[in-house]
Amino acid sequence: MEGDRLALGCDLGATNLRVALVTEAGEVVASAREVLDDREPEAVATDIRTLCDSVLAVGRKSWDEIAGVGVGLAGQILGDSGFVVVGPNLGWRDVGFGALVRARLGREATLVNDLSAAAWGEHRVGAAQGVDDALVVFLGSGIGAGLILGGKLYEGASGLAGELGHVKVVPGGRLCGCGERGCVEAYAGGHNVTERLQELVREGKAAAILEAAGGDVARVGTHALNLAAEAGDAFALDFLEEMAAHLGLAIGNAITLLNPRKLVLGGGMFHGISRLRPLVEREIRKVAGRAQAGVLSISESGLGDDAGLVGAALLALG
Amino acid sequence: MEGDRLALGCDLGATNLRVALVTEAGEVVASAREVLDDREPEAVATDIRTLCDSVLAVGRKSWDEIAGVGVGLAGQILGDSGFVVVGPNLGWRDVGFGALVRARLGREATLVNDLSAAAWGEHRVGAAQGVDDALVVFLGSGIGAGLILGGKLYEGASGLAGELGHVKVVPGGRLCGCGERGCVEAYAGGHNVTERLQELVREGKAAAILEAAGGDVARVGTHALNLAAEAGDAFALDFLEEMAAHLGLAIGNAITLLNPRKLVLGGGMFHGISRLRPLVEREIRKVAGRAQAGVLSISESGLGDDAGLVGAALLALG
Repeated sequence: MEGDRLALGCDLGATNLRVALVTEAGEVVASAREVLDDREPEAVATDIRTLCDSVLAVGRKSWDEIAGVGVGLAGQILGDSGFVVVGPNLGWRDVGFGALVRARLGREATLVNDLSAAAWGEHRVGAAQGVDDALVVFLGSGIGAGLILGGKLYEGASGLAGELGHVKVVPGGRLCGCGERGCVEAYAGGHNVTERLQELVREGKAAAILEAAGGDVARVGTHALNLAAEAGDAFALDFLEEMAAHLGLAIGNAITLLNPRKLVLGGGMFHGISRLRPLVEREIRKVAGRAQAGVLSISESGLGDDAGLVGAALLALG
Repeated sequence: MEGDRLALGCDLGATNLRVALVTEAGEVVASAREVLDDREPEAVATDIRTLCDSVLAVGRKSWDEIAGVGVGLAGQILGDSGFVVVGPNLGWRDVGFGALVRARLGREATLVNDLSAAAWGEHRVGAAQGVDDALVVFLGSGIGAGLILGGKLYEGASGLAGELGHVKVVPGGRLCGCGERGCVEAYAGGHNVTERLQELVREGKAAAILEAAGGDVARVGTHALNLAAEAGDAFALDFLEEMAAHLGLAIGNAITLLNPRKLVLGGGMFHGISRLRPLVEREIRKVAGRAQAGVLSISESGLGDDAGLVGAALLALG
């Protein structure tokens, strides 16, 4: 019976590998996680096989009962081959990872960008269910998006569509991890926020944020920013307003251009910083064209951290 | 024989109606143009019928030989019904224009946004032929774009996708014709460029541009700007650099987000201002993500002023 098909979804992060056994309805039946101790592609492919075997054991299923395997990872992946052009978190460049995974599994596997997988998960069983045109944005240590357009996952000419984090909001501005200047990620991505706050503290600013970090510069980051903002510190509140303005500009302009029905906002930064979501939503609605904003609904991620896992599994089911 | 099918394409502008008899291969066999003297929807629908009849007479074809009729107009059009939510050039709001046209023609007609029609024309028989993912930008008195994504015309959740002219490049900046502030069109659309230059002249600046306009403020505009820039006037050249920077920011960011294979740049401003195209292309490549820019080719419009007519006709052929 079609409704009973099962798939394995894998989420390959910078430090962790997660695998889940997922039903066609998007339910996670069993899952496991392990720390990657070797990022060599061959070793990672072997880890995927091993962790898939473990999850099948936990879920009391056999490989014969699995209709597909999907693997999501941060990076640029070329179409069906699963060739990884760049995988920045893993330090990979030009890795034929799809072929390696298929060899280890002895079966077909679908490789996909992790944010595209997450967007597909939200579209199929999450906050964008039943919506043909959706922009799914995740704000964590970096910033990225997945695009569902006309009911399909849109990945661009070379698998790079949705790189919202590298949209420029301050031409010639702050240096981003990508090597270019003025990207929204350089101002509002978690990693860069921590870096910026520590710089500010070293310049003698942001006293309340330093205090919230117990006076230890190395512990200054989004958590301390949130504490200071919650305590009403003006500097912290201004900092959040500036972050929201940059995010609102990048996301609001994407809404004007793409006219989606649904915007899904997910990622750890929204949980870590209580006041961020309403500020960002306000800025998005300020920047986006009035008519586009008029048909837009904004939702929190429905799948949270599981979006990528579930989406990769469902993509593998086709 | 399928290859011989014919369609009529109509392009409804603010002041003119154009109609062309178009082959399935995108060739314009016959065409005609008339000035609209009445913008009432009923009158315009009658004009469309009359001009279609004339073009058929010119091309020595009968209605029996026509496989489809497509009508492109500037505005927000809701899907297959051809309901015009807003048609700013015509001063229309909530007009069931599709039904009016069908009644006048006594047959099916496809209504579409003019820039979506133009993008489809470029995709099918113009500069983006054979390319699945293309962004088609037209820079005239206003600025707009059409999106070809995954080989299909993408129009968004409510027919507003591609409104590139209303992407914000200067938050809180110059007032745009749309009623919002800081849109790229407010800085680089032809109508606004003329307005800005006349303001500058009235403030005693841009002496060389005023001179190029024969000393008549009312004649200051893109033509005088081009003459002054060609003569090497520093003010005019700076103005062009600023225009290019704004356009590069809006278009380059769209390239980062959408990762198209092809960018088509068309519209009268590129013909009127000789130095504009290379400046804009340089700025786009500066702003767009390196990897996205690496797979992007940029072309001049292949169909020019006929893009909308041809695209509307080909859309009607399905």
